[in-house]
Amino acid sequence: MPQLDLTATSLDITRAICDVPSVSDDETTLADLIDDAVRALPHLTVHRDGDTIVARTELGRPQRVAIAGHIDTVPINGNVPTRDIEVDGEAFLWGRGTVDMKSGVAVQLKLAAELADPRVDLTWMWYDHEEVDAERNGLTRLARTRPDLFAADFAILGEPSNGEVEGGCNGTLRAVVSTRGVRAHSARSWIGENAIHKAAPILLRLSEYRAREIDVDGLAYREGLNAVHIGGGVASNVIPDVCAVEVNYRFAPSRSAEEAEAHVRDVFAGFDVEISDLSPGARPGLDAPLAQQFLAAVGAEPRPKYGWTDVARFSAMGVPAVNYGPGDPHLAHHDEERVPVSQIESVEHGLRAWLANR
Amino acid sequence: MPQLDLTATSLDITRAICDVPSVSDDETTLADLIDDAVRALPHLTVHRDGDTIVARTELGRPQRVAIAGHIDTVPINGNVPTRDIEVDGEAFLWGRGTVDMKSGVAVQLKLAAELADPRVDLTWMWYDHEEVDAERNGLTRLARTRPDLFAADFAILGEPSNGEVEGGCNGTLRAVVSTRGVRAHSARSWIGENAIHKAAPILLRLSEYRAREIDVDGLAYREGLNAVHIGGGVASNVIPDVCAVEVNYRFAPSRSAEEAEAHVRDVFAGFDVEISDLSPGARPGLDAPLAQQFLAAVGAEPRPKYGWTDVARFSAMGVPAVNYGPGDPHLAHHDEERVPVSQIESVEHGLRAWLANR
Repeated sequence: MPQLDLTATSLDITRAICDVPSVSDDETTLADLIDDAVRALPHLTVHRDGDTIVARTELGRPQRVAIAGHIDTVPINGNVPTRDIEVDGEAFLWGRGTVDMKSGVAVQLKLAAELADPRVDLTWMWYDHEEVDAERNGLTRLARTRPDLFAADFAILGEPSNGEVEGGCNGTLRAVVSTRGVRAHSARSWIGENAIHKAAPILLRLSEYRAREIDVDGLAYREGLNAVHIGGGVASNVIPDVCAVEVNYRFAPSRSAEEAEAHVRDVFAGFDVEISDLSPGARPGLDAPLAQQFLAAVGAEPRPKYGWTDVARFSAMGVPAVNYGPGDPHLAHHDEERVPVSQIESVEHGLRAWLANR
Repeated sequence: MPQLDLTATSLDITRAICDVPSVSDDETTLADLIDDAVRALPHLTVHRDGDTIVARTELGRPQRVAIAGHIDTVPINGNVPTRDIEVDGEAFLWGRGTVDMKSGVAVQLKLAAELADPRVDLTWMWYDHEEVDAERNGLTRLARTRPDLFAADFAILGEPSNGEVEGGCNGTLRAVVSTRGVRAHSARSWIGENAIHKAAPILLRLSEYRAREIDVDGLAYREGLNAVHIGGGVASNVIPDVCAVEVNYRFAPSRSAEEAEAHVRDVFAGFDVEISDLSPGARPGLDAPLAQQFLAAVGAEPRPKYGWTDVARFSAMGVPAVNYGPGDPHLAHHDEERVPVSQIESVEHGLRAWLANR
């Protein structure tokens, strides 16, 4: 395996790290490459925890910024190795991970190598297992083993945001809404009670639900309440006694986890509701002084982030955090995942403009 | 393995054949026992096809009656071997197959051995794979390989009917009613279309559906339209693009298969409906002269049969057919499956009363 050349262009680094598959649970090869490359840099102190690598400057600056990106991807579906393609005259790098989020990681790696003398101290964090259960996320593990490494005044996650700055993120709640009936042979259905039929009002409430759009610190967060799974049925000649609808509620960061739960219980009043997963969102945090400086330096108009990202983790630790990375989030996990080359370059320039000591 | 003693009581024969497990696909041991026992009877000519056994008298009588029962059961769930129990002072034989339908088969075996000189020629049929797909049913196979063995003027299926005569049977139709949407990440649900939400009217129509009760040849057939399965969902963060509801329509024997299909398509107008299974019912056939004689001999008031049984197969071949067997059909497939000893005896007496030459 050749070493990673961090003096290459951020496009070439993106290509190199996308062509090393790193589906969740299989990040070690890529983590080793990153580890080797950053340990060669004398201005960084490197910590390794599993397949998470933390590289810090220790220059005694009055402020510290954490810049993080996950190195795992969702499963490959015939879209590795990467290809250079052109769409409507625009150059793209196509393939798994180009958007979510190895182009963001590539820019971070390049700047980690280049910025030996940044204007703030930097904590670079590249971590594993973001695309699976939160419990397995490399940052969840690191927060237990080395919480001190999270100390920072501001954080930037390189999640795809079309090269824009996306503040905060929506929260997410999952719940199972279920009905119960009584089994019977379907030839004598009047003996039983059909749990699937009883679920009609659940689907009706979902289909009639009008999601709110909520202003939080000047950004408009759009919510959503959706069934993501439904299941019921015992056998093709049996009246089913259970039907379960899994719903996912994405809620604005102005709602607390408790308020989100109460809202879902209210929507499905009269039904059994079991909360299976609940992560509060993160307020944009754009009023922090470092955030204001950052916005001014990159010249960006902030937008809301709808998807939950690890900014919420920093936010919950009291560190204002934003998303800033190349790539269209709509193409994340897509088989036609591809990143505009121009966005890789603009994010690189944006971060450099803010972080370089002038 | 001891031989089957067909001179034992029908209760003891029921016990013996229930204690030889014969879940669908595993009928050979029991089929061999039956085969050995009936080949020892000089008044019967025996044919074997897989695990289906046909034993015929060939006495040159002007009329022939087919009497049939399946020897397979649904899976055992801790309810073999059988036990003698008492419920509210009444004696029962408890265990898998006691109702569906080894007590009926036991009565048939006993009478097959005893009635060397019946008043009509008899075709006894004991067959495999009734509890699974119709395509694997032993009678389906036999109808292809030896259709001549089905020749008869009247047929009696020993399916559980509480010792009453149940005429004909409802038809059954299965269909998959489905919706389509557009996948999207659930954090940006407004990009997609939720196929599960779109299924709300399907469940609503099912829950509001009022099934008909239809008089056919003097018997009241109760229909039913039910969801038996529902499924949809891609992943817990994806707006689902497909939702499928499997429905089962049980329809009176006065409706043709085509009418049943048209009715279901009408109920779910506007949705994609795919018919997956369709078996017409059987009219009671109680106006046949042999049926009238049979009813008079056993002294029974006929009732409608709701569940589909192989009487429909005979009916479709032009042979009027009824269900007549011990056991409460509500307890078929039940973990507490149990048959009243008195019903085993009354069915034995009823059949003997009609078939014995006096």
